[in-house]
Amino acid sequence: MALIVQKFGGTSVGDVKRIHYVADKISKTYAEGHQLVIVVSAMSGETDRLFSLAQQFSQTPDPREIDVLLSTGEQVSIALLSLALIERGCPAKSYTGAQVHIRTDDVHNKARILSIDGQKIRHDLSQGKVIVVAGFQGMDSFGNITTLGRGGSDTTAVALAAALKADECQIYTDVEGVYTADPRIVPEAKRMTRITFEEMLELSSLGAKVMQIRAVEIAGKYNVPIRVLSTFQEGSGTLIAAEEEDLSKSSVSGMAINRDEAKLVIQNIPEAISGISQILGCISNAHVEVDMILRSFHEDGKTDLAFTVHRRDFQKTLSLLNQVVTEIGAKKIFSNDKVAKLSLVGMGIRSEPRVTGKMLEILAKEQINILLMSTSEIKVSVIIDEKDLERGARAVHQAFELGSEVPTELMQGI
Amino acid sequence: MALIVQKFGGTSVGDVKRIHYVADKISKTYAEGHQLVIVVSAMSGETDRLFSLAQQFSQTPDPREIDVLLSTGEQVSIALLSLALIERGCPAKSYTGAQVHIRTDDVHNKARILSIDGQKIRHDLSQGKVIVVAGFQGMDSFGNITTLGRGGSDTTAVALAAALKADECQIYTDVEGVYTADPRIVPEAKRMTRITFEEMLELSSLGAKVMQIRAVEIAGKYNVPIRVLSTFQEGSGTLIAAEEEDLSKSSVSGMAINRDEAKLVIQNIPEAISGISQILGCISNAHVEVDMILRSFHEDGKTDLAFTVHRRDFQKTLSLLNQVVTEIGAKKIFSNDKVAKLSLVGMGIRSEPRVTGKMLEILAKEQINILLMSTSEIKVSVIIDEKDLERGARAVHQAFELGSEVPTELMQGI
Repeated sequence: MALIVQKFGGTSVGDVKRIHYVADKISKTYAEGHQLVIVVSAMSGETDRLFSLAQQFSQTPDPREIDVLLSTGEQVSIALLSLALIERGCPAKSYTGAQVHIRTDDVHNKARILSIDGQKIRHDLSQGKVIVVAGFQGMDSFGNITTLGRGGSDTTAVALAAALKADECQIYTDVEGVYTADPRIVPEAKRMTRITFEEMLELSSLGAKVMQIRAVEIAGKYNVPIRVLSTFQEGSGTLIAAEEEDLSKSSVSGMAINRDEAKLVIQNIPEAISGISQILGCISNAHVEVDMILRSFHEDGKTDLAFTVHRRDFQKTLSLLNQVVTEIGAKKIFSNDKVAKLSLVGMGIRSEPRVTGKMLEILAKEQINILLMSTSEIKVSVIIDEKDLERGARAVHQAFELGSEVPTELMQGI
Repeated sequence: MALIVQKFGGTSVGDVKRIHYVADKISKTYAEGHQLVIVVSAMSGETDRLFSLAQQFSQTPDPREIDVLLSTGEQVSIALLSLALIERGCPAKSYTGAQVHIRTDDVHNKARILSIDGQKIRHDLSQGKVIVVAGFQGMDSFGNITTLGRGGSDTTAVALAAALKADECQIYTDVEGVYTADPRIVPEAKRMTRITFEEMLELSSLGAKVMQIRAVEIAGKYNVPIRVLSTFQEGSGTLIAAEEEDLSKSSVSGMAINRDEAKLVIQNIPEAISGISQILGCISNAHVEVDMILRSFHEDGKTDLAFTVHRRDFQKTLSLLNQVVTEIGAKKIFSNDKVAKLSLVGMGIRSEPRVTGKMLEILAKEQINILLMSTSEIKVSVIIDEKDLERGARAVHQAFELGSEVPTELMQGI
């Protein structure tokens, strides 16, 4: 008998028929003798419906009241799923975030979970109940309703699993697990059976949209094994867990792709230190996040600065730079908002510096120009022209044999 | 500056346009310098929509989960109204029933309010906030969400007014106040400017659907003046308050009509005491409520028993009686489910026994047969054939001059 937290997203409880389906699935697992805590999102479309209602009263709606409004979406889901479970003889009991004391900070619309009091749930579980908790929501220290922001139900599930010391946190979604690459771009992409917290964190940060980053962080911190599964397909999904001592493991686990990038280059900055700090200062004051950044030197002592931002911030950043560039006396700005980021992630990268070299070789062979590059312990990212993205992604995916069941000797060798 | 609790029902916040209208109205009162606590119901139709969703999962849905589900209706209303108020520069803050500690018993779907902690609201009011509270809902001592049953928002408003010692509790509705009779039946019916708690209680019990009985009870107990007003028409409505020393006051204030009645008569019960107790016992065991009841004696020592029940319980009661009648050896049952109740209510009735006589006279003149009759301190009710109801109601209404602005000398005289 295991204690399992299961999270079902908005599409999994998207309509009456699907809620019936999910209730059948949960009842079956309950009949096998497991203790179950279920976390659900709002029925798909419901959050958007509520938000557009709010916009009929205000274009900049008050964040506190938005949380009061949006949190009803999950409350409807927990009640309906509980009714469906009770009808199947499964003794369900629903709770809002506030009712199980999911305490958050007071940043409305994107609150962070601070603590969870698992006492009530543990007591109910000991009585044989199935607990159904509203995802995405909590309560600040003044008793105000807060929401965690979109995708926050993952975080609720993982935080509950950590608080209850659950054996596994299962994230049910509309894909069959975590893939070596986005299957829409790389058709050969295959489901990974296992991946480490660190790898998943990098993949999430790099733009893979399977799991919310905060959820993976909490899972890693409290060592909660996560399994990403399909609601509507059978299968064992992808296990996200701590690193195993497995020497036969491939050095590269997966690939992430991100099209939301825009690149900016400022040429010939005369006074490098003050110039760069002025540039980055004005961008950060405007709440624009800089992703990759590269500084290059000229023989005459002048400096170039290249960096990327989210594509939605491109125009804003460009007009900020136009001012600063004149102030600091730099030569000019090159900009390109049609770039993309291609990344390889794997625990083996830190012990295998050749991964980076091999990636560059493959892209060179494909005559793909690398505009920027950055590496970390377990990640290599390159910025390339967006038009080269799919070709590059497929070539790299194939060369690293991410689509094959067993890593080749070559892969093990490097 | 007064502290006013205002309640807006489902039709008052029925759509986006009406919420804008109500927000304008509240902002205006706020601008006059009053302290305001607003209680709102779910947008009209929303409770039905949620309930029919529930029925797609269970024909006998779990009462606890129904409360979790239905309470979202008011939560959406408080958020939207608060957004509308904030947009108008009116510093609104919304609270669910649980958030302001509206403690109820644990009878889901028809819970009774036990206590309210006004501290949070008083603090917010002192900061100049307008408080918007979800009606119809509360929380039991275990933190479970409860609902008060249909119409419960009236009770929330009056209970809040009592807890906060508000100067007035204003119930905004789709009629302009409390009428001397149902205007759909008696076109001459007019709005009363003032009525006592006791009179309103009788009118509500007798079938006038303006206010929930429990709300009037609380108002009377804590002496909270209630004003029933129209949301969409200007006017001073009807004040429901304690009795005034006013000798010029009419002895009869209003008339109530109730069509949901059915009459049953059991003839020739041989052993009166044991027979009647067996009849009433079996009816009460079946949770059927007996309304009016009359026992009559024959010269031979046998007894007849006549009583009325709610029309929906008629068939059930009839089949129960068929059994009992044989057991106790009574002669037979007469039944009639096409009867109605006509009642006069007024504080003056207790000091004016002639009201009853006059009512009987008027009905006799109209050749309307009285099937059953009952009187209390401030009420006279008769059961008549439903076909005679409208004619009887108009005749009585006119004879007691309920439609006239000032009571006539005759009325003052009796």
